[in-house]
Amino acid sequence: MKKATILLSLALMVAGIASAQRRGPVVSPEVRDDCTVVFRYASASASEVLLDIQFLGAPLPMRKGDDGVWSVTVGPIVPDIYPYSFRVDGVTVMDPNNPDYFPNERHKGSLLDIPGPKLQTQAPQNVPHGAVNYDYYVSQSLGTTGRALVYTPPGYDANPDRRYPVFYLISGTTDTDETYFKVGRTNFILDNLIARGLAEPMIVVMPYGNPAYYFPAGAEQRRTANFNTDLLGDLMPHIDATYRTVADRKSRAIGGFSRGGNQALTAGLNNLDKFAWLCSYASFAGQPEQFETSFPSLVADPARTNQQIELFWLGVGSEDFLYPNAKLFMDKLEQNGIRTVTRISGGGHTWMNARDYLEESAKQLFK
Amino acid sequence: MKKATILLSLALMVAGIASAQRRGPVVSPEVRDDCTVVFRYASASASEVLLDIQFLGAPLPMRKGDDGVWSVTVGPIVPDIYPYSFRVDGVTVMDPNNPDYFPNERHKGSLLDIPGPKLQTQAPQNVPHGAVNYDYYVSQSLGTTGRALVYTPPGYDANPDRRYPVFYLISGTTDTDETYFKVGRTNFILDNLIARGLAEPMIVVMPYGNPAYYFPAGAEQRRTANFNTDLLGDLMPHIDATYRTVADRKSRAIGGFSRGGNQALTAGLNNLDKFAWLCSYASFAGQPEQFETSFPSLVADPARTNQQIELFWLGVGSEDFLYPNAKLFMDKLEQNGIRTVTRISGGGHTWMNARDYLEESAKQLFK
Repeated sequence: MKKATILLSLALMVAGIASAQRRGPVVSPEVRDDCTVVFRYASASASEVLLDIQFLGAPLPMRKGDDGVWSVTVGPIVPDIYPYSFRVDGVTVMDPNNPDYFPNERHKGSLLDIPGPKLQTQAPQNVPHGAVNYDYYVSQSLGTTGRALVYTPPGYDANPDRRYPVFYLISGTTDTDETYFKVGRTNFILDNLIARGLAEPMIVVMPYGNPAYYFPAGAEQRRTANFNTDLLGDLMPHIDATYRTVADRKSRAIGGFSRGGNQALTAGLNNLDKFAWLCSYASFAGQPEQFETSFPSLVADPARTNQQIELFWLGVGSEDFLYPNAKLFMDKLEQNGIRTVTRISGGGHTWMNARDYLEESAKQLFK
Repeated sequence: MKKATILLSLALMVAGIASAQRRGPVVSPEVRDDCTVVFRYASASASEVLLDIQFLGAPLPMRKGDDGVWSVTVGPIVPDIYPYSFRVDGVTVMDPNNPDYFPNERHKGSLLDIPGPKLQTQAPQNVPHGAVNYDYYVSQSLGTTGRALVYTPPGYDANPDRRYPVFYLISGTTDTDETYFKVGRTNFILDNLIARGLAEPMIVVMPYGNPAYYFPAGAEQRRTANFNTDLLGDLMPHIDATYRTVADRKSRAIGGFSRGGNQALTAGLNNLDKFAWLCSYASFAGQPEQFETSFPSLVADPARTNQQIELFWLGVGSEDFLYPNAKLFMDKLEQNGIRTVTRISGGGHTWMNARDYLEESAKQLFK
């Protein structure tokens, strides 16, 4: 019996013939028209199954049906994209029947996507679509093959003579180069803004904040130390050589969420000869109390800094655990006479906020 | 305490700050130079943790360390890419610390990648790299936005006047459009074959064998029924309009693994005006006993069929549970005078075999 189970699980693993092995596939999550959602998890042997989802204060118990399928109905839920997972007898698992997952080095979660009229911007609409490229490049600084995801806007292939500005967009700690694509919905947000004439057609490069994660011992440390070296010395030249970019500072933006926001600030503020547009989304923003020593040139000549920076956009949620630091950084910038556009939203350190910040700031880039 | 755990898990989920919450991140899998591998899983509360990996006849017990980290050392293991998962108190989970996963509608597994000299073809090498495009298209036949992954070979962007042949490559039941990329390693296999002059530079399109999986009730059924309609009526025109393809039958191949092999045979053999190159990897191959009624034109005029088909490549493993059917189909083709290239390998219904078949057959395409 045990052996049979193993063999089956291996068969599923290599051939993916699950549906052939079931009476009918378990549907989870089932999003209903009234925005209620049914979550299901099949287990004859489990003694407790809980639903862990962001907007619940505590995990929700699921009930076992006669068919051995545990289920719970939640909502109506405000339409958005929410990470969730199940806790089966205390063990956190993805929803086995949901192919949409949260790409991360550590955490394994599934994604609940409830489309709604207010969220058309992050949903696939019947508009011209850009493409997302998994692009590999040789990183001399790391001695590795690096990877970045590259969004090219609708019409990129059809207009071989047109060149585009570039937005470098970095995700958070333990996120991967896929997170801004699969959770951040960068491609759909840009597709929809561009289709409505609200954003300039642009290329968006999503690097791996820590790509050496994949590489041998020590490489991760090197990567952390050399993020800027790789970005400026390897990735950016590769992008400018491979895509039809406008390779000057006025057509180059950098931004990021959480740790990626710090990386964007460090790379951007220290390289204003390369970037004229800066975005920081819910970032820790370094040590604001060391602002003067971290960014001496800004402090020395705020007027020149303001002249160099086309847009300095900072956003954070009032319930974000990084709010105090982010707010202190915003204040430091203001005290030093650095012109910024700041947005204090509701909510916490979530990708729901990250998508809102991307949508809001992308509209202002390259204009 | 429970609440704290939940809040932490939510924090990880939305911000991915796992490493900040640990003394040091758990490394798993750790591939050593001698091809032994250490698997680790952190759980203070679990009472049993097992390793489920393909080449083991039964799951292997892991031992709990004083730090609450369970571990087991396996091997030396023959270098290859193996799906695996942990079973924590009977619950199957991905390796939380491994970002490489097996894309599938149902099963959630992680991937162990042991690079080896004999497997250079499926490993990233320091050669020119092609890109993998996540490409969206409007499917009139389904009334949905479809998605396909598209590999463009090295130099595609640098040679704007060059056109390329196209290989449509379909993965198996419950696999997604990502499986031939992330498990099949289509991009690295082609990069390496092309760099060594062993394969023609080609575009490879990886459709979703069942993309309507994502769409409302009924769509999945429609998709299954309309795979060919969408492929021929929506996806192929989109590809020929978007990429620099040579849009004729002599420059178009179709192939697939498992269910995808069946879909390739059905689409290919019934549309020889569109495809001149056919590949079937470990496929069920329909009902061979109904061969004559399924493919009347082949039976009626094998000479013309042989003249139309440039390559008809079929491979299956001798331990594959689909072997009897696949072999019967090969025999039927031979009995009916259809010229084929057949390969009976060792091994079962595995992606290890699927990658070998892709490498072997890709060398023969478009020559």
